[in-house]
Order: sequence, then structure tokens, then C-alpha cells
Amino acid sequence: MDLVDVFKKKKIGDKVEIEGWIRNNRDQKEFGFIDFSDGTCFNSLQLVYDNKLSNFDEVCHYHVGSSIIARGKLVKSNGKQAMELKIEEIELVGDAPADYPIQAKRHTMEFLRSVSYMRGRTRTFQAVFRVRSVAAFAIHDYFQKNNYLYAMTPLITGTDCEGSNQMFKVSTFDFNDIPVDKDGKVDFSKDLFSKQVYITGSGQLHGEAMAMSFKKIYTFGPTFRTENSNTKVHANEFWMIEPEIAFCDLNGLMDIEEDMLKYVVSYVLEHCSDEINFFDSFVEKGLREKLEKLVKSEFVRITHKEAIDLLKKSKKKFEFEPSYDEDLAKEHEKYITEHFNGPVFIKDWPKDIKAWYMKVNEDGKTCAAVDLEVPGAGEIMGGSEREIDLKVLDKRIKEKNVKKESIEWFLNLRRFGGCYHSGFGLGFERLLMYLTGMENIRDVIPFPRTPGNCDY
Amino acid sequence: MDLVDVFKKKKIGDKVEIEGWIRNNRDQKEFGFIDFSDGTCFNSLQLVYDNKLSNFDEVCHYHVGSSIIARGKLVKSNGKQAMELKIEEIELVGDAPADYPIQAKRHTMEFLRSVSYMRGRTRTFQAVFRVRSVAAFAIHDYFQKNNYLYAMTPLITGTDCEGSNQMFKVSTFDFNDIPVDKDGKVDFSKDLFSKQVYITGSGQLHGEAMAMSFKKIYTFGPTFRTENSNTKVHANEFWMIEPEIAFCDLNGLMDIEEDMLKYVVSYVLEHCSDEINFFDSFVEKGLREKLEKLVKSEFVRITHKEAIDLLKKSKKKFEFEPSYDEDLAKEHEKYITEHFNGPVFIKDWPKDIKAWYMKVNEDGKTCAAVDLEVPGAGEIMGGSEREIDLKVLDKRIKEKNVKKESIEWFLNLRRFGGCYHSGFGLGFERLLMYLTGMENIRDVIPFPRTPGNCDY
Repeated sequence: MDLVDVFKKKKIGDKVEIEGWIRNNRDQKEFGFIDFSDGTCFNSLQLVYDNKLSNFDEVCHYHVGSSIIARGKLVKSNGKQAMELKIEEIELVGDAPADYPIQAKRHTMEFLRSVSYMRGRTRTFQAVFRVRSVAAFAIHDYFQKNNYLYAMTPLITGTDCEGSNQMFKVSTFDFNDIPVDKDGKVDFSKDLFSKQVYITGSGQLHGEAMAMSFKKIYTFGPTFRTENSNTKVHANEFWMIEPEIAFCDLNGLMDIEEDMLKYVVSYVLEHCSDEINFFDSFVEKGLREKLEKLVKSEFVRITHKEAIDLLKKSKKKFEFEPSYDEDLAKEHEKYITEHFNGPVFIKDWPKDIKAWYMKVNEDGKTCAAVDLEVPGAGEIMGGSEREIDLKVLDKRIKEKNVKKESIEWFLNLRRFGGCYHSGFGLGFERLLMYLTGMENIRDVIPFPRTPGNCDY
Repeated sequence: MDLVDVFKKKKIGDKVEIEGWIRNNRDQKEFGFIDFSDGTCFNSLQLVYDNKLSNFDEVCHYHVGSSIIARGKLVKSNGKQAMELKIEEIELVGDAPADYPIQAKRHTMEFLRSVSYMRGRTRTFQAVFRVRSVAAFAIHDYFQKNNYLYAMTPLITGTDCEGSNQMFKVSTFDFNDIPVDKDGKVDFSKDLFSKQVYITGSGQLHGEAMAMSFKKIYTFGPTFRTENSNTKVHANEFWMIEPEIAFCDLNGLMDIEEDMLKYVVSYVLEHCSDEINFFDSFVEKGLREKLEKLVKSEFVRITHKEAIDLLKKSKKKFEFEPSYDEDLAKEHEKYITEHFNGPVFIKDWPKDIKAWYMKVNEDGKTCAAVDLEVPGAGEIMGGSEREIDLKVLDKRIKEKNVKKESIEWFLNLRRFGGCYHSGFGLGFERLLMYLTGMENIRDVIPFPRTPGNCDY
């Protein structure tokens, strides 16, 4: 049975059969202890064996990392756990020879990335990827409970949302033998979709279409950017959640963002308590308190102008001078969340530094965009009310060099029963880094894709 | 408020404000009726207005497809629904001029595909995409309740699972200016990942790695095949669920497949009752009975050999002669599910027609693969116990021309604490066609991708 069910459903005196892996094996003359885990929960179980076993000598030599099946009776333990398993029968399923890379010692994150396909067997990654799974479910749960439709928007696309220079090209061509037309240019009519296509950097435009049919929708899927950045926060493949809500303005959007984030954090605190305690002890001191505080706090709402006023008034010496026309630097975000001692929505940004689809405010200078800044992580979500005025859109598209022919269909959504609506994007890995305290995006994705790295 | 909540939480006499779209507007001299929907549930609400409204004349001319906000009081209805809304105030948010493509009449599926970004506003696609969303949640719910980890396996990959000739190539190169080496061959070292990469046709190999850490995992995400097939059941982008379970043999796998499918079907029957009734009336007569029967049935388990025996003994004239060495044709599947009058697992297939990663049985001729055939849809899931003997794997890889260097890491899973394990793949769209009775895969995907079609 699954170890998580042993802990949940079984009691001292019960007999159980379990299958899993050896974390550690310490044998003494007449008995030994195996630290056993099967990956279905964070905690491991101690297995106790003694020389009454017919295969005692063999068991003493089971290697770390080996898979086993064990049968026995749960008995009271004097260790950390309330119970341990007194082994009656144990058999080896798969050996892990001595060159098994993940031994019972401390490994660096860098080393573990080099064996990413096995690092899930360490305690740290047991905790990280379980939080990942539970948080993903919490997100689905939140939206489904609140009448949202899960919209699976396409990944292969000819539509230009964030700029096609940031999108991977997708093709069935043999790159050593690309068909060309009579002018020597690539003949995309010969490719599978009869034109050049990409893998998307955002499901937003398709999400908007779905919101115009289902009122409240969310996407949750993989997303791609070609950025050649080797930082701790960039990956070329990551997961995004992009809700889109018809008949919702910027204030309504902030209500939803706050409500959703609190729901997901509460859910993880409740369902991953052991994992959060582990991170709190070994990865980010104070993590639990940070998360519990977020759930209880009321998020502040200020404009970009008010944020800059605040930074200027602070008299603090910043590396980057705060400006009414520019984005906030990390140091600014930090100052603001510390000043308010909690999460802060910053809204009404200078339109020139924001995307073409964001609604231009009446002042003609700012747009109805909002970023949520949280203590310790900075920007965690970005959203906006969407521009629905076709004339304004036309101008913005030109300013931002968007290929209009690729979004004609999208513009039709404004012509036929359009309505004010808003949406936001939440980078799932950014949320996970916030939830776990892990500092590198490579360590919250099972198989990270970064420039030069696609080995597994 | 959302219309679904009006139906669930409000009663006659309550005042409500709703936002949504006009499905139909029939005005008479002194009053009129709007068929109103907001996309949060299948049923629409009738809005009744009369000439006491200050904007009565205007309201009479609201077009089909327009978005509106309406306030009023719920009153008893003599129509199909128990309630209707007596309008006190109504305002137009977004007009839908007379060239709005989706008028209140019957449209062909072909036509609706040509405006796929708006077809969600029809009753059929309201039903289809809500079932899609609810079924997706049911799948997550099933696996999370049963201790599975949601494993988000990578889409960009250099690993060859199903054969790289079926995978799309992914690149950051400008196709008109691809860098070449001194021999004139494409220089992939200059691409973002420093080698040629693909978007995956299966998360299985990475899923197996995760199962070796977490025992029970499932993937659920988009998948790609380059097949140039214009059939009703092929799309180039579709969603797959790929569970993988350590310490699980073929019988255990069939237990899981059966249990999961029944759970998902029950969940949809319970949560999409209106949608199922609609499909039952207008798309596939007898659909509800078919689904209810599946939930109650016990799935039969036979071998491929037994299936062929049965077909041969039937004396029926098949277009394709049944053969012990070959796959089953659609007509064979149909005969078998009709013979048993319910779902049938067919296991132990000739190894030569199955994938390299499936466990070869002791007879050396068959492999521990299993397909689930259901009445009316044929094969709906395919799975196997996985080969873990490295010598056998080596031979199979050679036979099937798999690039060994791309899966060296995967083979390591057998060297370090490997164990018997099994997994299956469920094509999400195939499940949806079964659940809704829709006959074309293009009509269960919001934005389908098929050869030559990537317009939106």
C-alpha cells in the first residue's frame, strides 16, 4: 500500500506490505534500520530488521537507492515518527549499485541538476515537486469552484501576442533541406500548416475569445519564450495560468487575484504542512510565517504614480532613480512591500512600457494594468483591463509592431458582442519559488529548459 | 452575478443583476423576450421586458449576439425553466451588428469551424467545452485523491520516445538564414539549446523517471504529432493523460484504468447533466444510457490471441482478415465490444507491432501491452508494463531504430533502483468524443490544429 495511507489509515499492531526505495541502511551486528520512502508523502518510515530474517546478511548489504518490497507489523517507535515497521519479510526488487549518484549525504543543487531525472528521490525535491502538484490542483480547484471554464488554448499558433521574435518556430521541415520558392525564400506553403507557425508565449488572446463565450475562463499550461537569459528566474519553458473574465474591470480583477492567491497559499499550507516545515527549516527561515501572514493580510492598492511618489519621498539612495515613465526596479519593489509590510497592487502604469492589449486610461498616458508585488518575491502576477476600442487598438498595434493580419480574428471579438473584460497572468514557477523558498527556477521544474540545457 | 448561481442560489422574488449575451430577441408590440446566456451554465434564462422601460424601443432592436447588463426580479415562468427575469433596467454593453456570423439558427459544424473563436457561443459548443473543462478536473481529482503526483513533463525535448520523424522541430533560427558548419550542414550548436530539439509526442519517458521517485504519477498536457492525416480522429495538437505507476503489473494497470474511467464518466454525468441530456437528444441518441452502463459494467479481460480466436470463430465476413500477428481493425473492435456488450481489455499483443518500451512476455513473442476497447468508440486507452531488462531493451531499441544516445539517461532508471512498473496513455479528445458523441476531433478542441489549419 502507499506509505501516505500507512500514516493516515493504519495503527500500531497492523500488518502492512509496502513497496519503495531505501534512503539509508544502517546495519549492526544483530539488527538494522532502513530509512524507507515510497514518494507518496514527505515523511519516511523506519524499517527495523533483525537476524531472525532468513536473508539477514543480504538485507544488511542492500544499497542506498535500491527498490524493495517489505512486509511487517507496525510497532511503536522511539524515533521521530510515532511508528516503525518491524520487518517480517523483505525482498530486493532493483539494486542500486555503488555508483548510484544520490547517496545519503548532502548534494549541491548544481550536482542534482546534472541528474535531474533522479533528483526527485531527495528530500528537497520530494518536497518541491509535491508542492508543485498540490498547488496546481489548488489552482484548478479554485477556478472550478468559482464557475470558471478550463480553456485549453492552442500552443501551436500563427497569432502574435507578445511579439513573434520571442517565440520558437515550429516546423516539420528537414533543416538541411528546406524548400524554397522561386525567389529563394523559404516556401512555408510546403510546411504542415501551409504557413510559418510558432509555439505560443501566451494563451491570452485565445483566452479572451473563450471569455467572450464562457464569461470566466482560465488557462493553465506550458508556455515558451526564446529569451537567451541565464538568470535564476528565466526558463525557456514554464507554466502559466491566465484567467480572463468578461464584465470585469480592474478593481474586480484585483479582488479575484487576491482571493485566488490566498486560496492557493492556504490550500498548500493545509495539504503540504510537512513540506512547508521542511522548507522553513532548511531553505527559507520564516517561510511558514510569511505564507500565513499573506493569507491574513489585506492587499494594498496604489497607482504607479503613488509608488514613485513614495520612493522619491523616501530619500533612500536607490541604484536606479525612480521615474514616473519607467518600470520599477527590484529594489523599488522591495522598498514598497516593506513599507506596507505586505502585498501591494500597483496599478495605472505608463502605457508606453506596457503591452498593446492593455486598456489606455482616460488620461491618455497610463493604462489599466496592475502588478501584484509580494514581500520577498517582488512581482508575482500581472494583469490588466483589456483595450476594446478598435481605434485605440489599431494605433497601439502599430506602435508596437504587431502583425495585424495575424490578429484580425481577435479584433473581431470587439466587433461582435464585445464587453469590458480583464485578465491576468501568473507564472506558476514564480508562485512555486514563493511557496517553497527555492531560489532558482531550475529547481522548481522537473526537467528545466534553459539556454544550452535540454539534456533529458 | 453568474447565471449558474442565479439558478443554484436565487429564488422567485429575488432581485438580481446579470451580464451576458443575447441568444435571441423576440419583440412584440408591448413587450419582448430575450433568450439570455452568460456561458457559466448550459441553460439560458428568459428575460421579459415591456414598454414601461424608458428604452423599450431600443431594447426591441438589440441584436442577437450583443452583450448586455440586466437588472430585475425573478418571477415564475410558464416556459421550460421554472423562473424568468422581469427586467427593470437593461443596458447594451457591446452591439453585434447584423453581419454577426452566429445567428439564432442552425449552423453546420463546418461553418462553425470557420469561426472557431466564436463558436463557443452556440449551445453545442457551450456543452462540449464545459464537458471538456469538467472532465479535465475530474481527471485531476481522481489522481490527486489516489496519491498520484501531477508530473509536468517537458514539451521541448531531445529524447526520442515515439520516433523523432513524428515530432515537430523547434528552433529559434531564422529559416531564411540558417547557420551552417564548414561542411554546409545545419549548425545546431548555434541554436538556443545547442542541439536539435523537438516538441514531444509523449511525456512517458519523463513520466517513468518521475514514477521512480514518486511511485504514482500522471501527466496531463498538450502533445504533438506531425501526422499529415485529414481524418475525423487525428489532430496535430491534442491533450494526453499519461499515468505511470511503480510496483504495478499489467493486472494492476487494468484495475486502475477501469477505476479511473468509471470515476471520470460518473463525475461528468453528475456535474454536466444538462449537457449530457442535450447530447443525448441532439448528437447521439442513447448517450446517457451508454455512459451509465459503462459505470456499472465489469470490464472483460482477454488476450489478443483470444480476440483473434473469437473473430475467426464468428464466421463473420470482415473486410480485413483477423490475424494473430496484426493489429485489430475498427470492425474487429466493434465486433468484440458488441460480443461482450461492454468494455473489453485486450492484452498480450504481438510484440512486433507494439512500441519498444513495452515488456516482452516470457513467450518471447508477445508483450505485456493492453488496449481498452469501449462500445461505440473502439480503443480509448493504451498501456503496458514497461520493459526493465536492459539487454532486452537494447535489442528492442535497435529493432525500432530509436536513437540510443538520446535515451541513455532513461536507461539509467533501470540501473539504479528500478522496479516493475506500468503506465497508460489516454487521449483526452478521444475520451471527449466518447463522452459527448461528437464525431470529429475538430469539434472537441477549442482551436484545432490539423494539416493546413492554424488560422486562429
